[in-house]
Amino acid sequence: MTITSPKGFRASGVAAGLKSSGGPDVALVVNDGPDATVAGVFTGNRVKAAPVLWSQQVLKGGIVRAVVLNSGGANACTGTQGFRDTHATAEHVAAALRNQPKPILIGAGDVAVCSTGLIGELLPMGKLLPGVTAAVKELDKTGGPKAAEAIMTTDTVAKNVHVQGNGWSVGGIAKGAGMLAPALATMLVVLTTDAVAGSEALDTALREATRLTFDRIDADGCMSTNDTVLLLASGASDVQPSQEELTAAVVAACHDLAQQLIADAEGATKHIAIQVLGAASEADAVEVGRVIARNNLVKTALFGNDPNWGRILAAVGTTQAAFAPDRIDVGVNGVWVCRGGSAAEDRSKVDLKGRDVTIQVHLHEGEMDATIWTTDLSHAYVHENSAYST
Amino acid sequence: MTITSPKGFRASGVAAGLKSSGGPDVALVVNDGPDATVAGVFTGNRVKAAPVLWSQQVLKGGIVRAVVLNSGGANACTGTQGFRDTHATAEHVAAALRNQPKPILIGAGDVAVCSTGLIGELLPMGKLLPGVTAAVKELDKTGGPKAAEAIMTTDTVAKNVHVQGNGWSVGGIAKGAGMLAPALATMLVVLTTDAVAGSEALDTALREATRLTFDRIDADGCMSTNDTVLLLASGASDVQPSQEELTAAVVAACHDLAQQLIADAEGATKHIAIQVLGAASEADAVEVGRVIARNNLVKTALFGNDPNWGRILAAVGTTQAAFAPDRIDVGVNGVWVCRGGSAAEDRSKVDLKGRDVTIQVHLHEGEMDATIWTTDLSHAYVHENSAYST
Repeated sequence: MTITSPKGFRASGVAAGLKSSGGPDVALVVNDGPDATVAGVFTGNRVKAAPVLWSQQVLKGGIVRAVVLNSGGANACTGTQGFRDTHATAEHVAAALRNQPKPILIGAGDVAVCSTGLIGELLPMGKLLPGVTAAVKELDKTGGPKAAEAIMTTDTVAKNVHVQGNGWSVGGIAKGAGMLAPALATMLVVLTTDAVAGSEALDTALREATRLTFDRIDADGCMSTNDTVLLLASGASDVQPSQEELTAAVVAACHDLAQQLIADAEGATKHIAIQVLGAASEADAVEVGRVIARNNLVKTALFGNDPNWGRILAAVGTTQAAFAPDRIDVGVNGVWVCRGGSAAEDRSKVDLKGRDVTIQVHLHEGEMDATIWTTDLSHAYVHENSAYST
Repeated sequence: MTITSPKGFRASGVAAGLKSSGGPDVALVVNDGPDATVAGVFTGNRVKAAPVLWSQQVLKGGIVRAVVLNSGGANACTGTQGFRDTHATAEHVAAALRNQPKPILIGAGDVAVCSTGLIGELLPMGKLLPGVTAAVKELDKTGGPKAAEAIMTTDTVAKNVHVQGNGWSVGGIAKGAGMLAPALATMLVVLTTDAVAGSEALDTALREATRLTFDRIDADGCMSTNDTVLLLASGASDVQPSQEELTAAVVAACHDLAQQLIADAEGATKHIAIQVLGAASEADAVEVGRVIARNNLVKTALFGNDPNWGRILAAVGTTQAAFAPDRIDVGVNGVWVCRGGSAAEDRSKVDLKGRDVTIQVHLHEGEMDATIWTTDLSHAYVHENSAYST
């Protein structure tokens, strides 16, 4: 169950020769309507790839009919030629959709573009544009899984999701890696729904969902130039859910995809949930969770099956969050190895042999909680990220 | 040439059995005067070890006659008992110095304490206190190198320095690792001078020196609970240098020690200088340099001999510094692989085989420069930090 599970969407994935592996590398998602409302969230990185700059412009119009995605090249740090290439790709998608037996009469301004791969190199347009033509021909109501496959880079499995509403649903595909491990491989997510929903309702749902899910996975603190999350609504179900229902379904879909991303993070041997409890504010809870998730000494300790709570406390000490060092408790897989800032239960009781690790940090400052998901720092991480482009 | 090179200081280093290796682990530095002025800089971590809390109190009195340092245990996250142990150590130093053939009549409040090692465990006081007694007996005007050796943890070489002034000088010892690699091993630095200088002049010199040196080395962004830098002045030279002369000598001594630290960072295969040029402010230059230095994808790329300027640009994009993505130039070992935010000289021209790497990032926003020194992220880093405490 995937991006084409909601009514009103077709998708495809083809091999255009962008990837040296010869695997599929161009994906297309088309919204057949009747509606074509959209919402999007983009990277906070100030160095933005050409397709991000393009898609941000396109979304200002409030309508997106098609999304074209490629792996095999990020089209980031490619100057004005890179932007012209993105524009040409969108033009080509629109022209190919117009030149069909059942034409879809749209322009380049209705086409969002996403790219992922190495930074700093121009896309081979002579391969990409024929790939787009082929992707248009392959469009199908069952094409979601092929699209999911075509956007993979260092992913080892394709990521799909489907969340059922009452007479409507939300589907999605994802690749990578947002702020996860793979060598700046972008997080690209496209979500679809056949609910009837205006752009504003979609935007509300999507921002809440990314805040609670994608923004809370963090494998190495690195932010891509290309991160993009799009939510397209076709209205084909004729059902207009409440904002609450819509948001809940989009949050559920994004949570599922986020967990698929973290589970597939490059070089990870641990899937780590950091639960920050008793914070004075949600912002404090997120800050504390994130600083632990990004701490290389905590991450290497967990790789070594070492419940090193001292490194966790030292990480917390670098935040601005409200806390008193002598009131913090730390639990690792249910064993409270630190109480009141000092050693408590015997650390040898902690079982870290499994892949799943839960770290609990109780600040005893208030009622707010947040969970950040991350991975360990392993030899495989170093290997894959030192060998990626050479 | 070391901490006992300036006139008026004695030091020692002995093995008290705190380290499982049996190596020297207790160091003592005594200021025989006539002056006993002091300045100190301590960790910014809000989780502070007991000896940091103690020494901060001691320095408020403006007089420090002795510094006792131990490896083999950080005495951090050890609660009230940990603080009592630090107090008892200082008392023991003062008592032992009073009970000598040539007594030094001081109290615990004249003794600074520094500890380094694992967090969260109480120090074995039954071993430490006899070690202090022995260290007092071993005090000698040539004892600096022994003190430098006794504070080593994961250091592979002892760090000493001596900078000559005009009739006076600055000496020092260091261990670890401030914000460097070794598993939260603390940066401990003790500097001595026989210049005549008040606490305020020492403080001015020391803050400027740490700002320009220790605060600009950054191997993994991790901040210890125990970091301490002390500067003691004996006045034994009878020479009172100008503030400018004093600051210059202290900066030179700290720069030398900082480079020794980064050169000895655990698991590093590269010694990397990140020069940020043309920044609008010094703060911008430091922020940009630091964010590059902490980026795991940049660090793994350099471990892999890959001049991956795209990762550098993506790191810069996460800062708040003034810059335009299409005006940044990036040079790696003298080859400008990126000009104006896009690919420039052929990256295959970059020779990364050596240990020393210079990265230049030109922002073209102003006249301010700063250099941050760091290391790569290697398999050895992961190994040493995942195996440290288990």
